[in-house]
Amino acid sequence: MAPAVEAGAQSGAHPDRMDFAQWMPAIQQRVERALDARLPSVDLAPAKLHEAMRYAVLGGGKRVRPLLAFAAGELTGAPDATVERIAVAIEFIHAYSLVHDDLPCMDDDVLRRGRPTCHVRFDEATAMLAGDALQSEALAVVVDAPLAADPARNTGLLRMFALACGSRGMAGGQAIDLAAVGQSMTLPELERMHSLKTGALIRASIMMGAGCGDTYDENLDARLSRFADIVGLAFQVVDDILDVEASSSELGKTAGKDAMQNKPTFVSILGLDAAKARLRQLHREAREALAGLGERARRLSEIADFIILRKH
Amino acid sequence: MAPAVEAGAQSGAHPDRMDFAQWMPAIQQRVERALDARLPSVDLAPAKLHEAMRYAVLGGGKRVRPLLAFAAGELTGAPDATVERIAVAIEFIHAYSLVHDDLPCMDDDVLRRGRPTCHVRFDEATAMLAGDALQSEALAVVVDAPLAADPARNTGLLRMFALACGSRGMAGGQAIDLAAVGQSMTLPELERMHSLKTGALIRASIMMGAGCGDTYDENLDARLSRFADIVGLAFQVVDDILDVEASSSELGKTAGKDAMQNKPTFVSILGLDAAKARLRQLHREAREALAGLGERARRLSEIADFIILRKH
Repeated sequence: MAPAVEAGAQSGAHPDRMDFAQWMPAIQQRVERALDARLPSVDLAPAKLHEAMRYAVLGGGKRVRPLLAFAAGELTGAPDATVERIAVAIEFIHAYSLVHDDLPCMDDDVLRRGRPTCHVRFDEATAMLAGDALQSEALAVVVDAPLAADPARNTGLLRMFALACGSRGMAGGQAIDLAAVGQSMTLPELERMHSLKTGALIRASIMMGAGCGDTYDENLDARLSRFADIVGLAFQVVDDILDVEASSSELGKTAGKDAMQNKPTFVSILGLDAAKARLRQLHREAREALAGLGERARRLSEIADFIILRKH
Repeated sequence: MAPAVEAGAQSGAHPDRMDFAQWMPAIQQRVERALDARLPSVDLAPAKLHEAMRYAVLGGGKRVRPLLAFAAGELTGAPDATVERIAVAIEFIHAYSLVHDDLPCMDDDVLRRGRPTCHVRFDEATAMLAGDALQSEALAVVVDAPLAADPARNTGLLRMFALACGSRGMAGGQAIDLAAVGQSMTLPELERMHSLKTGALIRASIMMGAGCGDTYDENLDARLSRFADIVGLAFQVVDDILDVEASSSELGKTAGKDAMQNKPTFVSILGLDAAKARLRQLHREAREALAGLGERARRLSEIADFIILRKH
């Protein structure tokens, strides 16, 4: 990433300051190319496994986590190539989690990103192995070169990544989610579950995207950490609202699934109106967390808007 | 690890030169403690997931890969603490692969290490997530501190680890194995499959155990690489012979499974006598590969004997 422009300087002229409406597809296309380049070719054996891995990752997805990583990288002048590797690794982890989550022994879902889920398109064993291999591939991408020149910083970033994926991160959140089917949950319990299941990886996208830049510091850490928690939570509240209000074709995945599976959601606990009010509050809090970081935080603010105001 | 004793010096007196019969359980106990310490406590949420992870890893297993890593570390004066982290990470990967391999959509097995398999003891979803989280935990262990002071060497070792786990390593071997059920295979195809499914991780144990030591060099690389390939292959030939000759109670897992599932094995392709002859040949080749490395390679030679002559 080019050095971040200081607040107020050159706004509009600098290439990093392109409109969000142009920036977002540019980053998405860049990430799509990088994902494609990092995935093993179907020309390599085992071809079916590689085909399943590519199917699970490519051709869909809003790439929210990569967008967050690139936006956070702008805060600290993070090198483009490093942010790209972080984005690819996190997207591999996200894709593997969806593949495993959709399996019959988990959510048993048939539709994802408007297409048959991986185990429907291939078979259960291949889907499971494709998920497994995507997690290994994420590791390969993230360790392919240091994420920061300073060894201690590099170790810290890699630890953050591992923790976000594991039993005290995403996988732990999935286990809590699984145990929650048909159970009642309090709002704090629900928030805790989502802070792991989706929050951990969203948080890692932001903290690692910023953390690999040279100007990262402790002061930024507290603000950004707060922003990451809020955005992670807001992301899930939106998901729960859309699960009620949007159609399967709009979502590209099975709508109304939570209610069908009797899963606790923000809507089932708070009601639809209160869930929407909570979302507006989180939106304000997200903006407040970024206040004082100046123009270099504009992209993060824009992505928060995008995540919170999205319709699918 | 204490500096490796040069060929011929102090043999018998140095603590590293304890008898294999004492050394093996000492390393196994050390690894058992380290595995226990690195696994999340069941006091942490989600408790059931952590219980399943601990069940999958602890209380069984010959710890062949950790033994190989420690023995290889003796070649290069590798630091004990680093070899231990490598051993733990690889054993986490091995344990997760067994959990996923035993699932109904894969081998559908109910007995492992003399106990019910993880999905039988818990449930399928928990077993799958426990495997997923063990892979993340392996990553956490391996990145917890640099594996080598030199950043390029460290990156090389981490890459080696990631590659051994993924679609061009263990997970890829599992996919080929899966596709092979009921199919005929040539001997080279079978060897290729096992070089990935079990060979890749055995190879990583040896190459990483030695590679994190200060005196590692290119000359060692070629000999050790050849030794690793031979031992990986021999390990599988023994497995195939035992699957025919040993009982389930001796093995702690379902005996005769390969024939039952109509899987190609060294015994089914070569016949029992020729498989045993091939094993004797591999044993000779393993010793030849270590020749010229002197006394510091004695442990590796002893483990090769142990792996090849084992009865369960």
